[in-house]
Amino acid sequence: MVEFIHTATLLHDDVVDHSDLRRGRKTANVIWGNSASVLVGDFLFSRAFELMVEDGSLKVLKILSNASAVISEGEVNQLTAQRQVATSEDQYLDIIGAKTAALFAAACRISAVIAERDETVEMALDSYGRNLGIAFQLVDDAIDYASDAETMGKGVGDDFRDGKMTLPVILAMARGDEVDRTFWKDAMEGRRVSDDDLAHAKTLLDGTRAIADTFEKARLYGQRAIDALGIFPASKAKAALIEAVEFAIARAY
Amino acid sequence: MVEFIHTATLLHDDVVDHSDLRRGRKTANVIWGNSASVLVGDFLFSRAFELMVEDGSLKVLKILSNASAVISEGEVNQLTAQRQVATSEDQYLDIIGAKTAALFAAACRISAVIAERDETVEMALDSYGRNLGIAFQLVDDAIDYASDAETMGKGVGDDFRDGKMTLPVILAMARGDEVDRTFWKDAMEGRRVSDDDLAHAKTLLDGTRAIADTFEKARLYGQRAIDALGIFPASKAKAALIEAVEFAIARAY
Repeated sequence: MVEFIHTATLLHDDVVDHSDLRRGRKTANVIWGNSASVLVGDFLFSRAFELMVEDGSLKVLKILSNASAVISEGEVNQLTAQRQVATSEDQYLDIIGAKTAALFAAACRISAVIAERDETVEMALDSYGRNLGIAFQLVDDAIDYASDAETMGKGVGDDFRDGKMTLPVILAMARGDEVDRTFWKDAMEGRRVSDDDLAHAKTLLDGTRAIADTFEKARLYGQRAIDALGIFPASKAKAALIEAVEFAIARAY
Repeated sequence: MVEFIHTATLLHDDVVDHSDLRRGRKTANVIWGNSASVLVGDFLFSRAFELMVEDGSLKVLKILSNASAVISEGEVNQLTAQRQVATSEDQYLDIIGAKTAALFAAACRISAVIAERDETVEMALDSYGRNLGIAFQLVDDAIDYASDAETMGKGVGDDFRDGKMTLPVILAMARGDEVDRTFWKDAMEGRRVSDDDLAHAKTLLDGTRAIADTFEKARLYGQRAIDALGIFPASKAKAALIEAVEFAIARAY
């Protein structure tokens, strides 16, 4: 169910963001067009709910339908924040908290529900998933500027050209001078989006340690995810969950 | 819930069909763009499920989640059938049965579930909704060729330009000669879509009684919807349901 919901949102995201590369391969919208991506996303989403209802747990339904509503509201908020240079770090964290992080939190939490464990376990796994998701998104937003298409498996500079106010940009703007801020405003509002502009943006990001600090924040959220697992005894499962955090952060390098 | 699901599918439909007019007004995709329509549709869809889960009836959830899955699968099938001149009348009826008709059927059926009536009542209302939906869609597909933008509240000839194999076209092709079939093939495959071509299409539709027979079929399905209400005693509610059928068919004139 979670995988269906996740894939549905990715199909729609790629249409909304006009992305042409995901996981190192052409996106569905590039191969089959926007219409097919919209409709197949709707189908996956509907099927996910049909599967949940067949399973018959109202508690699981509640967690996942709530997560879906939060995620789709977050997507609308993200669209509204696009090209808005006034976006703050807090607003940014709200937005990414309502994306993959909300789905990771729900996915982890329902495992406790299915295993019939108590509220404490539910909330610990919710926290693990949420912080892992935030760490993942922070790394994602950093490597959009720091990596190359082959390593990251998606288009380089997509966020830059889409005018997405991600943390690296928010930090670089806050720490830059007037000239830099004018550059970022022009870039985010779509008036400076050439390859040379992207190269200049990278220079500003390096000069303000914006990328390095975004990775540092990702590590902090990753640590919070690991700490949330503190109530569980050591086990193979716990080790795998910890490894997932380390992997999400290490993929940046 | 039904209204949310319906509006979500309309928002996505207008993106998929590149429509610019609905209910006599500009479509959301024209005013706010495709991205907003996709994401707000997703939000409405998610909220519909969240509302259903809050209500807590697993039976209602089952009916509506199944209807959603059927509808979204039908939308994908419709996209696949686009520009496929080999589409048969049976395939067409399958496609329109999986669109609004499936939602109308589910909406009517859950009223019986909520009122705690037996299976016979459920199935009678399901049949009423389904046949009303099919009648509605047949009229919709006919007036796309027979009416003007002001009367119908949506773009004229949209189906023609999108290469949609609706019943009027299927009938006109089946009843035309080789020259006509070549024209329809060229038109549906997107090679003859000028205003003159549309005017010629209308002449062919008139000559084969394709529009008149589509309306006639709509009346038959409308009558089936009314007959499904036979088990109910006369009442204000029943009269309103019958009036809805008559309205759906009369809007063609």
